[in-house]
Amino acid sequence: MAQTATGRADWEVAAQDKRKQLEKEVHDIIQGIPPLVIDLPSNVTRIPKRVLLDSDVQITETRAEILVQQIATGKLSSLKVTRAFVQRAAIASRLVNCATEFMTEAAEERARYLDDYLQRNGRTVGPLHGLPISAKEHMKLKGLDCNASFVSLIGSEAQSDALIAQILLQAGCIFYVRTTEPQTLMQLETSNNIYGVTVNPYNRSLTAGGSSGGEGALLGLHGSCLGIGSDIGGSIRSPAASNGVFGLRPTSYRLPLDGFVAASAGPGQVTPVVGPLSTSLAGIELFMKTIIDAEPWTRDSALVPMPWRSSSRLSTTGAGIKRKFRIGVLIDDGIVRPHPPILRALAVIRKKLEDSGEFDVLDFAPYKHDEAWRIINSLYFADGGVDIKNALEASGEPLRPLSRFILEENPRVKSLTVREVSELKAQRDRYRDEYLAHRNNTMASLNTDKPEGSVLEDRAVDHADLILCPAGPGCALPLNTSKYWPYTSQWNLLDYPAIVFPTRMTGVVSDRQEVYVPRNERDVYNQSLCESCSLMTTKKSC
Amino acid sequence: MAQTATGRADWEVAAQDKRKQLEKEVHDIIQGIPPLVIDLPSNVTRIPKRVLLDSDVQITETRAEILVQQIATGKLSSLKVTRAFVQRAAIASRLVNCATEFMTEAAEERARYLDDYLQRNGRTVGPLHGLPISAKEHMKLKGLDCNASFVSLIGSEAQSDALIAQILLQAGCIFYVRTTEPQTLMQLETSNNIYGVTVNPYNRSLTAGGSSGGEGALLGLHGSCLGIGSDIGGSIRSPAASNGVFGLRPTSYRLPLDGFVAASAGPGQVTPVVGPLSTSLAGIELFMKTIIDAEPWTRDSALVPMPWRSSSRLSTTGAGIKRKFRIGVLIDDGIVRPHPPILRALAVIRKKLEDSGEFDVLDFAPYKHDEAWRIINSLYFADGGVDIKNALEASGEPLRPLSRFILEENPRVKSLTVREVSELKAQRDRYRDEYLAHRNNTMASLNTDKPEGSVLEDRAVDHADLILCPAGPGCALPLNTSKYWPYTSQWNLLDYPAIVFPTRMTGVVSDRQEVYVPRNERDVYNQSLCESCSLMTTKKSC
Repeated sequence: MAQTATGRADWEVAAQDKRKQLEKEVHDIIQGIPPLVIDLPSNVTRIPKRVLLDSDVQITETRAEILVQQIATGKLSSLKVTRAFVQRAAIASRLVNCATEFMTEAAEERARYLDDYLQRNGRTVGPLHGLPISAKEHMKLKGLDCNASFVSLIGSEAQSDALIAQILLQAGCIFYVRTTEPQTLMQLETSNNIYGVTVNPYNRSLTAGGSSGGEGALLGLHGSCLGIGSDIGGSIRSPAASNGVFGLRPTSYRLPLDGFVAASAGPGQVTPVVGPLSTSLAGIELFMKTIIDAEPWTRDSALVPMPWRSSSRLSTTGAGIKRKFRIGVLIDDGIVRPHPPILRALAVIRKKLEDSGEFDVLDFAPYKHDEAWRIINSLYFADGGVDIKNALEASGEPLRPLSRFILEENPRVKSLTVREVSELKAQRDRYRDEYLAHRNNTMASLNTDKPEGSVLEDRAVDHADLILCPAGPGCALPLNTSKYWPYTSQWNLLDYPAIVFPTRMTGVVSDRQEVYVPRNERDVYNQSLCESCSLMTTKKSC
Repeated sequence: MAQTATGRADWEVAAQDKRKQLEKEVHDIIQGIPPLVIDLPSNVTRIPKRVLLDSDVQITETRAEILVQQIATGKLSSLKVTRAFVQRAAIASRLVNCATEFMTEAAEERARYLDDYLQRNGRTVGPLHGLPISAKEHMKLKGLDCNASFVSLIGSEAQSDALIAQILLQAGCIFYVRTTEPQTLMQLETSNNIYGVTVNPYNRSLTAGGSSGGEGALLGLHGSCLGIGSDIGGSIRSPAASNGVFGLRPTSYRLPLDGFVAASAGPGQVTPVVGPLSTSLAGIELFMKTIIDAEPWTRDSALVPMPWRSSSRLSTTGAGIKRKFRIGVLIDDGIVRPHPPILRALAVIRKKLEDSGEFDVLDFAPYKHDEAWRIINSLYFADGGVDIKNALEASGEPLRPLSRFILEENPRVKSLTVREVSELKAQRDRYRDEYLAHRNNTMASLNTDKPEGSVLEDRAVDHADLILCPAGPGCALPLNTSKYWPYTSQWNLLDYPAIVFPTRMTGVVSDRQEVYVPRNERDVYNQSLCESCSLMTTKKSC
């Protein structure tokens, strides 16, 4: 490892330069507002309100779908909205270390242009006119460094915007801040050698989740109302769940992936997806509808040419028989039991759904989730992790704890032959079919509304419209302990769309009183983390 | 190679048994009709009319979409229709060797059941009620041998119906005949060691195309009005074009592939598709709509949950601007020039389209089709062809000429590493994006109908709605000469839907008078085939 005259390694110098640059950007933004307290409390979620003007607090706590209306109707200027989010994001950066870069000047200039455009033309340029949105660092923005948090990639200036950024810009958005991700991008937390660790705004000794942890923490503090993350094993859902916001992992090939930098783990063996995080459900839909309405398949040949269907509530079978929307409740994957606050939250939600009378709610048993994890974990690293290791070794940066866990302590990191990869993919496809059959079988008990008919017309096909399940084995966990991926990676292997939503519930004392005998080592480890876990719970459904 | 007491190899005995069984089936069917002429003419398309009853000729020359109506309204019984097709298919089998098996008794029994069902219930079981349809042999049908034309797989009894067969049966169809495919399934002709060679009904010295050549020849003789083929490089389109019928290669993951037997060439590296051949365009749509309306994605996890859109005529851009349907005409791939009858047919169709005034018609230049062929040809055989070779060696059967061409004389048959396969797939994805950009650029000249606007709203995205192009470098070719795949495999690499339609045009003397200097060895070879080529021309569009 090369060292400088001061005794520090080259990689440390490169990383420090990046940090200094960020510090300067943040300093320039927050110099006009009251100083932040020096001894930060564990929960910093109330600090932004104290130091920002009331009007800026109000703007930043307004939902994306309302903000675009207020800007489009002239009630708010894009410049005012942009400045408010820039300020709140800079404060968030100080509190939880969630940002990598601020584009303050360019954002304000674009906001002025859009305000002017609206005034001159009496119409918006698109559905996101004037809305500031945040983006995970590894999405390319023209002219900006895009290093995916590999020290060796610092200084890799993007020659063009990622395709999704082009579409969002054409819809009128403004990029003002970029956010942190972990070393390797293969962590459910956010810790790297350039910016350090991103922490949870509700409890700074806990993780913000990952890999889109910068987005999660930023949104949790209302430093953004809509942001772009990416997900190959839980990287949108983990931070959404950890910070109490919405996060959607779309199905593969719905949103364009072109222009996202990674050192690809087992190139091409598991398809990552891009998706939104938002402080509102309507913000998620605004994002999806905007991009899909732009017909991205006319620019990216990998995408499925399928329109966005706003009303996708299934109320009939294919045969045209009316029935209720079906919700299967999957409480526990049978391997690692979720912490008590998660179990309680699921029970409360289940009861509400049942009491509403609008849904058929039933138990959904896990089906070989450990088999799913074995397959996807092997596919992630089918190249023996060589691509990632090379990208790390190029700078000499050391492994962060959870990088070491997934790369070096993981028995599935193994270079495979073409035949072995094909066999794994065949296993994946069989597992997907088995899981589909499991869904159909689970729902078979509800099929009391079938018309009489011969064997010929008995389609015998029905399935859960939605599976309600935990987004992880616990709430936000202590730093460097998020080692159990299957509560999220399960849906990557199956390639199901999955959305995380906040329950706004908090833990109670009785959560800690249950006696439980763990099933295995991973379960023991997970239970050992419970005492220190956050008291905020969130759920995910898919 | 093991030999029997008679001096013949074991594989020959197994193959002969299959042929004898077929002969008996055919004999049982056609014993009631006048004997076929002994010295068959080159063109046998008029023979069935001579030997069948007029009423059976009329039934078998009626389109699928009309037959289902006539059966549903009681104008025709399914039994009568089934018997007519069974007879005509048996005659076709004698004339061009297109069948592997007849299920006469089971088909008639099912027809009786369906006729009875209709009479008792006053309604059909589904949109294909009572319609006899044919299927390529390698589709599994419960209880029947499914050998994919590998001698070593003779006797592999299917334990269940292929998923697509289940869906079609639930829609009311009747399977009555199974059809030939070539050894390895990787030929654009149809020649194997079990049934021999399937020939073209318009000229028995020419090929029926392949690999779904049995379907093509059967439909060309109206021995079926709707059949099931499969396509990984042209295997639906080549026989449709060679026999003057319609054939559709759908996009991947639209129709279920479960239950098709193959010795997978480079397992999983190129996705094969299943699709229909039909004597009518409406027959193609009937097939697609029936399957997709049954929501096959609720039973096969690989499928895209996208409804069938009957009216897919694009008349607007994404921005809602009305415009004409766009047709790019690709005459020549720049490597091997199609034979004169093909060029003339394309010119005639182009003029008709232009004269109609309904379309924007423009030149569509080829874009690196040789690069596309290099990539897909390498992906087909990324396992070094080992799977196929093993399936052949298991019986000791010798290679047929075009199997030798594609497996042994093909420099791209090479065992690759995971990294090399990933790199090839990355090249494929880049090529797909480049081709999409090429489509957009080609159409840019037509963009005169754009509204004025700022850079922000200039989507600059448009593309050819349809590319009209040849389905091959010539009409049906002499046996064992179909060595140039790229006119069809191009669209497999791009994964574009592609439909072949008949022009009903025949060759003229002037086609043979043009002087042309070939560009390269493959072009020389193709031009050398022209004098002997059929005078029937067909086109494909995608």
